Amino acid sequence: MKVLVIGGDGYCGWATALYLANRGYDVGILDSLVRRHWDNELGIATLPPIASIQQRLDRWHALTGKKIDLFIGDITNYDLVQRVFTTFEPESVVHFGEQRSAPFSMIDREHAVLTQVNNVVGTLNLLYAIKELAPTCHLVKLGTMGEYGTPNIDIEEGYITIEHNGRKDTLPYPKQPGSYYHVSKCQDSLNIHFACRIWGLRATDLNQGVVYGVLTEETGMDELLVNRLDYDGIFGTALNRFCVQAAIGHPLTVYGKGGQTRGFLDIRDTVRCIELAVANPADAGQFRVFNQFTELFSVSDLAAKVQEAGRALGLKVEVNHLPNPRVELEEHYFNAKNTKLLDLGLHPHFLSEALLDSLLNIAIKYRDRIDAKEILPRVQWR
Amino acid sequence: MKVLVIGGDGYCGWATALYLANRGYDVGILDSLVRRHWDNELGIATLPPIASIQQRLDRWHALTGKKIDLFIGDITNYDLVQRVFTTFEPESVVHFGEQRSAPFSMIDREHAVLTQVNNVVGTLNLLYAIKELAPTCHLVKLGTMGEYGTPNIDIEEGYITIEHNGRKDTLPYPKQPGSYYHVSKCQDSLNIHFACRIWGLRATDLNQGVVYGVLTEETGMDELLVNRLDYDGIFGTALNRFCVQAAIGHPLTVYGKGGQTRGFLDIRDTVRCIELAVANPADAGQFRVFNQFTELFSVSDLAAKVQEAGRALGLKVEVNHLPNPRVELEEHYFNAKNTKLLDLGLHPHFLSEALLDSLLNIAIKYRDRIDAKEILPRVQWR
Repeated sequence: MKVLVIGGDGYCGWATALYLANRGYDVGILDSLVRRHWDNELGIATLPPIASIQQRLDRWHALTGKKIDLFIGDITNYDLVQRVFTTFEPESVVHFGEQRSAPFSMIDREHAVLTQVNNVVGTLNLLYAIKELAPTCHLVKLGTMGEYGTPNIDIEEGYITIEHNGRKDTLPYPKQPGSYYHVSKCQDSLNIHFACRIWGLRATDLNQGVVYGVLTEETGMDELLVNRLDYDGIFGTALNRFCVQAAIGHPLTVYGKGGQTRGFLDIRDTVRCIELAVANPADAGQFRVFNQFTELFSVSDLAAKVQEAGRALGLKVEVNHLPNPRVELEEHYFNAKNTKLLDLGLHPHFLSEALLDSLLNIAIKYRDRIDAKEILPRVQWR
Repeated sequence: MKVLVIGGDGYCGWATALYLANRGYDVGILDSLVRRHWDNELGIATLPPIASIQQRLDRWHALTGKKIDLFIGDITNYDLVQRVFTTFEPESVVHFGEQRSAPFSMIDREHAVLTQVNNVVGTLNLLYAIKELAPTCHLVKLGTMGEYGTPNIDIEEGYITIEHNGRKDTLPYPKQPGSYYHVSKCQDSLNIHFACRIWGLRATDLNQGVVYGVLTEETGMDELLVNRLDYDGIFGTALNRFCVQAAIGHPLTVYGKGGQTRGFLDIRDTVRCIELAVANPADAGQFRVFNQFTELFSVSDLAAKVQEAGRALGLKVEVNHLPNPRVELEEHYFNAKNTKLLDLGLHPHFLSEALLDSLLNIAIKYRDRIDAKEILPRVQWR
């Protein structure tokens, strides 16, 4: 099956593209490379250095004999999207090609506007391209668990059945996004859902939790295939950032009380979840939502786990509670469902000491590249 | 109180600006005039000819001695928004300044993108301007009843209390918008709600029904103050369009079965609702949602009413059921609440024979200007 991975040069996208290629899918990557540009703009860098996308793909080809097509361009440019669809003829599109950082979207007005226009227009263009050029193509879109916020009731997968004044309906789950980035994902969901209703498109929205880890079978094959690992205050996410902090003796930066609970998953499960969605497409007209995470942790839980794993490796790990740069509840109910991907056959890699060891060792290996002043949050929500 | 009416040259905006000015508010209008440009582009025109915004305001000043400040510019340009905020110093912003037609947004990809970028970026800019330049300013934003779609349960005003698995929370009401335009309004609601939560802004989202009528006390004062009346397939809305059709002996165009039920209100109530929202601002941090309509009608009900009123005036009025250009339920449950504006003091003008007579007579007066080929829908949802 021909699968176009948009954003295939990024953290989740790169791992996914190789994983799918390794499993026999005919993979193309479409990426604007703007993520590398933002690193330059913000003066940040992935912890392990990464090769150019061209070098990456050449090495992959040399190692495995498998060719991944490369299209460099921006999906907010519809001419380009049309050209890629006509050339590659995707049967499935995996869409990671969005600005994906909440702090980035909160830097200032320009970054909020950039995030929403980029994400919403890119996705709209894909919907139109599928409708016009590949109407049976399955759109696998990355959403986020952050669309739901932290409601005081159980979080279902995309929809909730509501009984109200003696009547009943199953409706889209209410959204309470926590940044302009998270809003953009809700905006996308509305457009995709609508396109499925009116045009009969088939789509799966993967509301993903926080991804951790860096190594997958494929990215571990060669130094030139190594994946990016972000630890900075803009693109770094909780667990990965904690491991980097532990490696250089920086206190773990817990924002506020640390009772914020979120869904998490190993990047090896991300790639498998994408494959499960691709291999089991939505029906025509169906807008399917899966919650893509494997475990719930509070930020304090995670800090404690990293502290423990670090100590076992002889690292001295302190935990610092910083004033929270975000506006969010720091103690709250959180119970999200995640059975749909399990039902399709996901066998989770639960967070283990072995994973933490591996992450910590990668961080230690590259500790000389760590820029300590990039670790603290520099974007305030208020 | 200083009230900035964005989109103050449009159908609802013009009537509102004059009404507020007449009630003693210090009114400024900010408008890009793009609505007039779209008329030119699409080859359509308001039924009664309208004067230029400058002539309108000069005449208003001459008649009443009241001066309305005019700012011509596009709110997607943040420099302009800042200049207007600094010059006018609004205490309340009434935001009609969006692309407001569902069919327009469904013409093609370009119009879908234009609608969402225009509406979302304009509103984001206002949120940032309020935060940075006028943090206590009250945003009164026009939403639409169409954000809710047609759920099989009662529609509440913005929020719904959900009991689920033994727990309870009050959450944003689930949205099922029916066009890319309606999606844009939901996208705005998400951004405004978020800005209220993190920055403590005060906002009222008025989910308005379908507005009918054209005459208000102020726009009726002089030929140069006359309001626009759209009857074409793009910007025309149900009741106004039916009256125009009746006036020229064109069959009333009911889309599909006609069981589509919606909230409606007289434009004289629109202006009063805006005043009620302005005069009773939301609290700091509050995102308040009012459903702004006075009665529920099905499209077939309306057609029958126009038929009856037309016959009384000696017009021969037929009703045609066209294939529905939209994708929507044509028979459905619909029960929406609208008590919040009534509680604030709204005394509705319910749909009456007198109103229909007046609308029909206006349509008859301008019948020579009617371009019959603009009446039929030319935009298909599928």
